[in-house]
Amino acid sequence: MNVGFVGTGIMGAPMAANLLRAGHDVTVWNRTHEKAEPLVALGARAAPDAPGAAAGADVVVTMLANGPAVAEVLFEGRLADVLAPGAVLVDMSSIPPATAREHAQRLAERGVGALDAPVSGGPAGAEAATLAIMVGGEEEHFERALPVLEAMGRPTRVGPAGTGQLCKLVNQVIVAVTIGAVAEGLVLAEAGGADRAAVRDAIRGGFAESRVLDYHGRRMLERDFVAGGQSWMQLKDLDTVHDVAADVGVELPLLEQIRALFRAFVDDGNGSLDHSAILLELERRNDQAST
Amino acid sequence: MNVGFVGTGIMGAPMAANLLRAGHDVTVWNRTHEKAEPLVALGARAAPDAPGAAAGADVVVTMLANGPAVAEVLFEGRLADVLAPGAVLVDMSSIPPATAREHAQRLAERGVGALDAPVSGGPAGAEAATLAIMVGGEEEHFERALPVLEAMGRPTRVGPAGTGQLCKLVNQVIVAVTIGAVAEGLVLAEAGGADRAAVRDAIRGGFAESRVLDYHGRRMLERDFVAGGQSWMQLKDLDTVHDVAADVGVELPLLEQIRALFRAFVDDGNGSLDHSAILLELERRNDQAST
Repeated sequence: MNVGFVGTGIMGAPMAANLLRAGHDVTVWNRTHEKAEPLVALGARAAPDAPGAAAGADVVVTMLANGPAVAEVLFEGRLADVLAPGAVLVDMSSIPPATAREHAQRLAERGVGALDAPVSGGPAGAEAATLAIMVGGEEEHFERALPVLEAMGRPTRVGPAGTGQLCKLVNQVIVAVTIGAVAEGLVLAEAGGADRAAVRDAIRGGFAESRVLDYHGRRMLERDFVAGGQSWMQLKDLDTVHDVAADVGVELPLLEQIRALFRAFVDDGNGSLDHSAILLELERRNDQAST
Repeated sequence: MNVGFVGTGIMGAPMAANLLRAGHDVTVWNRTHEKAEPLVALGARAAPDAPGAAAGADVVVTMLANGPAVAEVLFEGRLADVLAPGAVLVDMSSIPPATAREHAQRLAERGVGALDAPVSGGPAGAEAATLAIMVGGEEEHFERALPVLEAMGRPTRVGPAGTGQLCKLVNQVIVAVTIGAVAEGLVLAEAGGADRAAVRDAIRGGFAESRVLDYHGRRMLERDFVAGGQSWMQLKDLDTVHDVAADVGVELPLLEQIRALFRAFVDDGNGSLDHSAILLELERRNDQAST
């Protein structure tokens, strides 16, 4: 298919490379042009601006920093103006669900399909084309964009416009609370005189087993807190979840508790540490010495 | 080895059967004698009382309901009196860490080794000999009992007396909070208009992946709340964690939040439902209709 790709940063570049490997015709644009050049070497065309990457495309992918960046490219930067009726805009940026719904509405008025399709899996998942891709939008547009989505990972449609973003927030809540659960478990183990590494080994494979116990639990034991997923970004996501939950009228007590922990941790100047470092906040509250 | 086995209930019976299969000489006793009979058919000797199961044994396993039941068998029922110096008492019941330490102390005074070795994995893990066995006690006694422990599952020594029980509590905290995290995620997904089953599918394999998302998440989607792990037992464990945390002087905010949820849920008459049914408590608070 003819694919436009806007935003070839740390995530976007390997995703666009996978589209090329899958045989798609890809035209790329990035604000910092140098970041698009390795893709040209792989066979992509470079466009002079974002609308140039989108002109004539069947599917256009945007992978940008936040909601305002997406709005700027689509509507101020006039990318939306060059999309042909029947084209599908796949925004894979992580932005609030309400913003994604608004963008989909504005594109629908122009006869353009829209999917919100944020991802989970990080740069490693982007390289390996194993990203979890959480998709909101019409089934019809999902089907049309499927060959593009499947070249980058494992897409699942979860509902109408905005629910892809909602699904990513659900993911973030579960990850953050599970990190907190493992951290509290290790704090308790230490305080009670057990060997924390042995405790983690002992409970592996049972109902406590999780990717978090494996990956973030190892980070906690090794005190390896170079991000990874930065704590300030985790907090930003949890703040967005709080706002969305308030909008739809639900209270999530564990979310509020882990959010308060990250708020205190980030306010203390630790925002750039990996989110597994929330262990340090619990240790600080409990006067546990570093081991 | 010569092994005494006291308490051949829903967990103890398959564990004792695995000892027989591994070639150990096993003498069993159970308060309700009928429950020991299938083991006799497998080659076990039946003792007339608990001390009778322990006399002459290298290792004695107890698998009983709670701390008072263990104390009664060991000290009032005089099992401890027949243990030879050098024998090891392996208590695989789930009891408070402080009680386990007290039992170990009283046995040490008689020259008898003691391990606290609670398990995780349920009847299925007991049958398959894949139980996670969390062991507190002296390294020397652990080594001596290892052939017995390894016939029932995967033993890990985590520290001195009482830390096996502590490790199990760490396991329970992580499981309970993770169940709460998945339940909050599904409540948010539903409230925001996403398909909950599709959301769970979409986030599988990423950092949110866990045994809880797999097993308890499926139960939540199918509203299959026949226990499994009963909510009143989950609450009892969380109350014990609260007491232990207070004893060692640590505050665990997520633990307190999930404990409050289970307290309300059990007080409402739902104690016999599976712990994954904490979803219902969150839905009730948020006035979500059952789907």
